[in-house]
Amino acid sequence: MNSSNSQGPAPDAQPALPTAKDKLLFTPGPLNTSLSIRQAMLHDVGSWHFEFNALVASVRERLLKLAGVSRADGWEVVLLQGSGTFGVEGVFQTCVPPNGKVAIFANGAYGERIVQMLQYAKIAHAVLRTAEDQPADPAALEKLLAADKAVTHVAVVHCETTTGILNPIEAISSVCRKHGKIYVVDAMSSFGAYPIDFEGLGADFLISSANKCVEGVPGFSFVFCRRKVLTACEGYARSLSLDLLGQLKGFEKNGQFRYTPPTHVLLAFSQALEEMEQEGGVAARGARYRQNHDTLLAGMSELGFRLFLSPAVQSYIITAFHTPTDPKFSFDVFYRKLSDRGYIVYPGKLTQVDTFRIGNIGRLFSADLEQLTYAIRKTLHEMGCAVPVSYK
Amino acid sequence: MNSSNSQGPAPDAQPALPTAKDKLLFTPGPLNTSLSIRQAMLHDVGSWHFEFNALVASVRERLLKLAGVSRADGWEVVLLQGSGTFGVEGVFQTCVPPNGKVAIFANGAYGERIVQMLQYAKIAHAVLRTAEDQPADPAALEKLLAADKAVTHVAVVHCETTTGILNPIEAISSVCRKHGKIYVVDAMSSFGAYPIDFEGLGADFLISSANKCVEGVPGFSFVFCRRKVLTACEGYARSLSLDLLGQLKGFEKNGQFRYTPPTHVLLAFSQALEEMEQEGGVAARGARYRQNHDTLLAGMSELGFRLFLSPAVQSYIITAFHTPTDPKFSFDVFYRKLSDRGYIVYPGKLTQVDTFRIGNIGRLFSADLEQLTYAIRKTLHEMGCAVPVSYK
Repeated sequence: MNSSNSQGPAPDAQPALPTAKDKLLFTPGPLNTSLSIRQAMLHDVGSWHFEFNALVASVRERLLKLAGVSRADGWEVVLLQGSGTFGVEGVFQTCVPPNGKVAIFANGAYGERIVQMLQYAKIAHAVLRTAEDQPADPAALEKLLAADKAVTHVAVVHCETTTGILNPIEAISSVCRKHGKIYVVDAMSSFGAYPIDFEGLGADFLISSANKCVEGVPGFSFVFCRRKVLTACEGYARSLSLDLLGQLKGFEKNGQFRYTPPTHVLLAFSQALEEMEQEGGVAARGARYRQNHDTLLAGMSELGFRLFLSPAVQSYIITAFHTPTDPKFSFDVFYRKLSDRGYIVYPGKLTQVDTFRIGNIGRLFSADLEQLTYAIRKTLHEMGCAVPVSYK
Repeated sequence: MNSSNSQGPAPDAQPALPTAKDKLLFTPGPLNTSLSIRQAMLHDVGSWHFEFNALVASVRERLLKLAGVSRADGWEVVLLQGSGTFGVEGVFQTCVPPNGKVAIFANGAYGERIVQMLQYAKIAHAVLRTAEDQPADPAALEKLLAADKAVTHVAVVHCETTTGILNPIEAISSVCRKHGKIYVVDAMSSFGAYPIDFEGLGADFLISSANKCVEGVPGFSFVFCRRKVLTACEGYARSLSLDLLGQLKGFEKNGQFRYTPPTHVLLAFSQALEEMEQEGGVAARGARYRQNHDTLLAGMSELGFRLFLSPAVQSYIITAFHTPTDPKFSFDVFYRKLSDRGYIVYPGKLTQVDTFRIGNIGRLFSADLEQLTYAIRKTLHEMGCAVPVSYK
């Protein structure tokens, strides 16, 4: 948002350090996108028109290609209006039979959100919780499935952006396969950044959204699935809008979304897929994010910031840092001063420990992370905080 | 979509009559918008950032103002990600108690869609159907309510875009009030084009969406409601994503959408509200649409096209025309030839009668409708159809 668009009671009428640039987003999404992706939204198109239908078909084909799977091997992808949460909820609202039961791993807000979805839909469930700094534990699932034969589905968040922790989706997959359970992976923040071997993984549903690592703008989610598993869910859906099978049938019937799609967001996403292919696909994009992350960690380490997670489970998507205990440090002031400098970081979402988060996905490059850590240094100085920062 | 974006198998490799302009949309939505509204989407903004929260707050305030109601009088507006259908379904998923029952007027696809939503959610309901060219009948509701004491909610579509028919929302309101029923009006295509006296009407919920007569781009819906009626629905919601009360609580807690909003679509909508105020609000916009409609009818009448509806119930939003019976007329060819000329019309949605539709809302002016009817004349000539067109 450029400053002339700002409607809000800004903290200071005149920012201390105005900047000519739009603010850069170091968040888990919405993210920075390229100007050409945003420019694709300068056109109005008809959602019923054959040209738009062709674009939607092409987006679905290119998503399957990006995922390394094909219709010939039984894969499908369904686009659903709304945020990523709508796509995740769509899976459970559509695919769990009335007498089904879901086992969910939870070590952060997004795992807990799945629990909430199941409570709303009155779907039986069992929660496998670990501490927020501990990855999901496949052995716990093994134990649960041995004891509870009612479980039909297993769900896990791949990269839990509450902390940035990576959960072991492959090891969980082995347990699901052994017991013949339907496996749902929330790959919201990881799809496009981490190579995922869809066939090898053996998941039945994987969900991500337009404004994550494909670097589109927000407005819809997409659900990869094994077609056979989805079409077996006839009659289960509890919501018309969130009915993924109905949505698939709509695409297959006439190439259209059943209900008005965010046409401009789709145009942007088509361009985003184009630019992702040009960059070199998942491998190249993952490498850029990893380099961003390395630059961030080097800069933050120099400033004395401590990671919340152990490096072994830390993703290169988003990183949680312990909040310094220096009494002169206030996250609100820190956030606003960084915002004045043109850098938007992200508050923590942990219940027990004081942290803040920095994302490094989206259209960001190493130099942007270097500039960010410099802006953080200047901000700490301005706040009168010792550098390196102190912890009790 | 400019032609270079076209991915599809166009009917002719080389359109007969290329045009330099983006195609104009004569549809019920998505619609044409102003370039400045689309340009507002050229910025990436953080969905957690205080500037964006202020913009969301301002959008909600300006929507209430546009509706002519205020929080002081107990009104609220809740924005929900997804298409208009998501907003309508959100009302029923959130607000009907487990033992509730909904009476729905149906004289087109959008009334029937509400029936479908209730079937999905297993909510008891009674349908008051009239023929597609007959308005909803308040006397039928009176009769139903006298006989069936279980009904708690009444729902009607104001302008049923299946045909363009206007339903008598005021007369239905009187019956609802007399019997103390909760009244839900799907005002998707009418809000912003027809003056609606919210207080006088006595509705409890009114739904519209971003890409209708406010002339924003698609990506979210908005639900006006009496705050007291919504907050009394605690615990009823059957879906997390579609929970309108949860969504309201989110806005009231920290100014944010609970889940990622379509940030760019919101920026565009803020600009659309600005431009609507500049144009002169609902009165001026309604006058422009009425003038568009008059121009359309004059031109189409000259060409011999017959209206599906009687003028007494015909809205100035969208108009259904009988398809000519001239054997040389084919809607598919007609549609594609008009598309080549840069004009997108809309197919019919009626089950029994062959019609096609022309919308005149969105950023369109009289001259655009005049040009459209000229393009239709040229197309008819090209197809070898007699003008005026013939009907058996």
